[in-house]
Amino acid sequence: MDNVRMLIVDSVQHAKAGHAGMALGMAEVAYFLYRHAMNYNPTSPNWFNRDRFVLSAGHGSLLQYVCLHLAGFQSVQIEDLKCLCKLGSRTPGHPENVVTEGIEVTTGPLGQGVANAVGLSLAEAHVGARFNKPDVAVVDHKTYCIMGDGCAMEGLSNKVASLAAHWKLHKLTLIYDNNHNTIDGSTSLGWNTITVDNSQGNLEAFKNSLISAHSETRKPTFIRVKTTIGKLSKNDETSKAHHGTFDDDDVKKMKQKVKWDDREPFHVIPMVYSTIEYQQELEWHSKLYYYQNKYPEEAAEFKLLLADGMLPGWESSLPKWSMSDPVDATRGYSGKCLNALAKVLPGLIGGSADLASSNQAYLHNFGDFKQPDGLVLHGGGLIPFAATFLVFSDYMKNSVRLSALSHAGVLYILTHDSVRIGEDGPTHQPVEHLAGLRAIPHLLLFRPADGKETAGSYKVAIENRNVPSVLALSRQKVAANVEGTSAEAVGKGGYIISDISDKELLPEIILIGTGSELCLCEASANVLRKEGRRVRVVSLVCWRLFDRQPRDHKELVLPSSVSKHVSVETGSPLGWKEYVGAEGFVIGIDNFGSSGPYSEVLKKYGFTEEIVTQTAKSLLAK
Amino acid sequence: MDNVRMLIVDSVQHAKAGHAGMALGMAEVAYFLYRHAMNYNPTSPNWFNRDRFVLSAGHGSLLQYVCLHLAGFQSVQIEDLKCLCKLGSRTPGHPENVVTEGIEVTTGPLGQGVANAVGLSLAEAHVGARFNKPDVAVVDHKTYCIMGDGCAMEGLSNKVASLAAHWKLHKLTLIYDNNHNTIDGSTSLGWNTITVDNSQGNLEAFKNSLISAHSETRKPTFIRVKTTIGKLSKNDETSKAHHGTFDDDDVKKMKQKVKWDDREPFHVIPMVYSTIEYQQELEWHSKLYYYQNKYPEEAAEFKLLLADGMLPGWESSLPKWSMSDPVDATRGYSGKCLNALAKVLPGLIGGSADLASSNQAYLHNFGDFKQPDGLVLHGGGLIPFAATFLVFSDYMKNSVRLSALSHAGVLYILTHDSVRIGEDGPTHQPVEHLAGLRAIPHLLLFRPADGKETAGSYKVAIENRNVPSVLALSRQKVAANVEGTSAEAVGKGGYIISDISDKELLPEIILIGTGSELCLCEASANVLRKEGRRVRVVSLVCWRLFDRQPRDHKELVLPSSVSKHVSVETGSPLGWKEYVGAEGFVIGIDNFGSSGPYSEVLKKYGFTEEIVTQTAKSLLAK
Repeated sequence: MDNVRMLIVDSVQHAKAGHAGMALGMAEVAYFLYRHAMNYNPTSPNWFNRDRFVLSAGHGSLLQYVCLHLAGFQSVQIEDLKCLCKLGSRTPGHPENVVTEGIEVTTGPLGQGVANAVGLSLAEAHVGARFNKPDVAVVDHKTYCIMGDGCAMEGLSNKVASLAAHWKLHKLTLIYDNNHNTIDGSTSLGWNTITVDNSQGNLEAFKNSLISAHSETRKPTFIRVKTTIGKLSKNDETSKAHHGTFDDDDVKKMKQKVKWDDREPFHVIPMVYSTIEYQQELEWHSKLYYYQNKYPEEAAEFKLLLADGMLPGWESSLPKWSMSDPVDATRGYSGKCLNALAKVLPGLIGGSADLASSNQAYLHNFGDFKQPDGLVLHGGGLIPFAATFLVFSDYMKNSVRLSALSHAGVLYILTHDSVRIGEDGPTHQPVEHLAGLRAIPHLLLFRPADGKETAGSYKVAIENRNVPSVLALSRQKVAANVEGTSAEAVGKGGYIISDISDKELLPEIILIGTGSELCLCEASANVLRKEGRRVRVVSLVCWRLFDRQPRDHKELVLPSSVSKHVSVETGSPLGWKEYVGAEGFVIGIDNFGSSGPYSEVLKKYGFTEEIVTQTAKSLLAK
Repeated sequence: MDNVRMLIVDSVQHAKAGHAGMALGMAEVAYFLYRHAMNYNPTSPNWFNRDRFVLSAGHGSLLQYVCLHLAGFQSVQIEDLKCLCKLGSRTPGHPENVVTEGIEVTTGPLGQGVANAVGLSLAEAHVGARFNKPDVAVVDHKTYCIMGDGCAMEGLSNKVASLAAHWKLHKLTLIYDNNHNTIDGSTSLGWNTITVDNSQGNLEAFKNSLISAHSETRKPTFIRVKTTIGKLSKNDETSKAHHGTFDDDDVKKMKQKVKWDDREPFHVIPMVYSTIEYQQELEWHSKLYYYQNKYPEEAAEFKLLLADGMLPGWESSLPKWSMSDPVDATRGYSGKCLNALAKVLPGLIGGSADLASSNQAYLHNFGDFKQPDGLVLHGGGLIPFAATFLVFSDYMKNSVRLSALSHAGVLYILTHDSVRIGEDGPTHQPVEHLAGLRAIPHLLLFRPADGKETAGSYKVAIENRNVPSVLALSRQKVAANVEGTSAEAVGKGGYIISDISDKELLPEIILIGTGSELCLCEASANVLRKEGRRVRVVSLVCWRLFDRQPRDHKELVLPSSVSKHVSVETGSPLGWKEYVGAEGFVIGIDNFGSSGPYSEVLKKYGFTEEIVTQTAKSLLAK
């Protein structure tokens, strides 16, 4: 165990960076998990049935890197430990799943890792319930999560912990590093726990707590481990040990304390390395073989799920709409897409936090379910969706960010997407949310205008398994099939829905809209056309996809020689100048909305055919 | 009591809008609070020592409007009830403090009202502790909050409830409307509570629970009231009762049930109106008179706080920095400003959630404290500040939005404002956050470049008592005094910090920066100037304030005849095109950052003097 601590000390000392406090305090516990408790195969890090480990207290990343190294993961060599927190290293300041093999989940924002551990455990329970048989369990693993005082202080942890209990995720073990130190001082937490005192490094009690956790068949287990933050270092037991590096003298004293002072830095005693031969994966494969013979149909589906979870030609199941279809809200079209997809995408899983009927995000054939974080990182083709009102995306902002950072292709179905919700008023009317979500790197935000664009958005969102997508959907009804829109064109982010008749000429003005405002643009364009104006209407359904198009396509849709543009979107004007240009005009809302019937609210904020037409005319007159 | 319900039914029926379910279920409880439990004066709604009431389940707004009407508040007349949810009415869909007198807090996003009730109660405890004397309590009121199942499901509620217990806010009473219905189904909650069954409308048990609450001297009280959602209506006890209107037949049957069918809509029996003469305010004024005679010094401070909380000339206490001052981070300059202000602004109150030493948001002379929501709405000159890392503003996004919507002048001190934090990596490096916060209507976001601009930002933020402000501050050191910056100019949002020498000419190019990047612009400008180029550098410290300047000032700073601009900011490029124009170039980050030493991270993302200079040159060459 001293060896684990000395590797931590040497890494911090060498890199002059890192958070050693938690790493030193929890060294025994984490090493014990990797050495004696968890099933995994370091030479096959993505083996489906491995136990999952999440370090929610992500600032202790170094501890996980040391454990991965000692367990035999190729991704963390001694050289990597020496590069701790260096640019481009495989050992960044907080664990990143997209950087280091063996890291399941990107962590750092406190509490989020606990939520993701609940998601991983839920994924296991969900897939297990679908495929396991009384005589053979092909999905059967545990999920471990180490959380700290800081995680416990986030409301999110309480919330997901109560969900885990509700879902009876008995294979989930939360280990709470109760070192009595957060940066500002002490905390306490009133959970029902197994308490283990590990401040003296006696692992017996911890071992027994794991045995108790494993024998539990209904409840998730919460193990509160008392540790000594910064154990061995001169600042141990104080908040000073949380981060910062050691000075030479401190390192010398620590090494003397454990009689390590005659050894080279980064020395590892061979026996500290894992020597277990990882049989579990082989055993699992025999189990799978048996399963395949006995339950061929389920095995086929299971394998499909493991591969990527999509039946060939799944896109063709998406509904198509004709001009004669009755009007509905885009949330309604979305509900139809989602239920059609559920039949061909076995991995589709998700729900809405208490708003499923409002969000129309309920899988009618699949019983009840609620929103988890992080299901997608479990692997095995799961495609999680999470639904709420667009305005309440604020409550999950950090989770959305983390999914983009973790390359997790979550679908966020965010309905009630504008002031058009009317009576519920400004607390429920999103204004700045489209801009805020568009600013998140990588994330794809779609604001479809009708049934066709809704289906097209689903197609692109599901094809992009490494990027989260937001579908911003209307509460109020819009046409199923706006003339000129196209499901296929959604992939280009922006395209022409109606244009001037003479293809030799350029338009005098271009009206650009998204979602519910696209029809408004089209209505104004028709008025202007009757007056002899050359008007084009463009749907800018996904900014980021449009920005990525080759110059040709962008020039085709928004030619640089046309300087007059009007954009129309019931949201913050932020960012629209990019598309309308210096002379263009942005019709947006830089104010909170108002309670009232939606047609009146729209009028108040300038979203009427008359105002769009007037604005275009004043621009044309310039 | 039937009268209260019938007013609710008539309002919903008349307006064809509103959420009647919760209003019908909680009618007795709310009416009892307004009629028999709370101290307030409807003819003086802002009386300082009134009891505060928060309807966290804001969709029940109608119930509060009916209670305000019956209590005698001028702000809600029968005519207002008839206008429920109409545009411009005083009875919007969710309660808005800025619209209706008698509403303390804008609510709607579930859980937020509970947080604000804790804030109101904390304000009472805090101001009381400062001014009350053993023989006279000039601050002594209760805070009541009605929350629903939806509020209980938000992690935020658990978090603030635990803070309330920690702070021993024994004058706070949370009343939990446990109607066993959320939109999707049933919930349960494991709190330690007084449980009251009010499903039969027997108020005796509720009355006793309030007596018990009032006699409690250490703990806040949680009263779980079982009610019948949509009581009387045909959908009672089901989630269908949550919202939607009644049909004529349903209304008729309800009226028959309570023998109300021979009465006109909106009928009120005179005895249902409050007849109490509100003596408490008069008594409080005599108390204050006694206090003033006996404790003149404290009384003067107390009155100052009640007036607006600022000593004349408070601005002059803000630190000034000279060229010879040692460099510090803007978070460091911020800490000095905050502590200087605390001496002259008795209302300054706040702290940081576990990061006070990192945020440098600790009032050294004022003991320990942690972050609450909603203190500002208590009145009495409190100026709350809340500090965390900029990246974690995501966790409080909805609270920030509500403060802007409620005209609450909270200061948000958000440090570690860019990828320059280096080693902690992308989970801790804000990228999209500046854009996301700028998109929130009304909010002022400042990103000061040095000590002077930090002090200037504090001045403007504190002067704007009706608007929340964000100060985005650096972790790494920057100069105290960048040549050309000015505390006074911050109020204009954007201004010239260095320019060409010949005032007869215009610059060829303008470099625009904020915060830590302003010096980078200046360094590049100096290189270009040595090569004979005419370069201007502009600090755009607060976009919204700049946008509000008269055209003259904007034209002076960014003349329309100059077309070459480069903006430099370590954040999302979203929105910058507005300032750099069609030809301009935006140096920003549309990617998550990286773990590494900060100089290398900056280089990776293009934030070096060389790259800024090259970009400017390529633009000049066009």
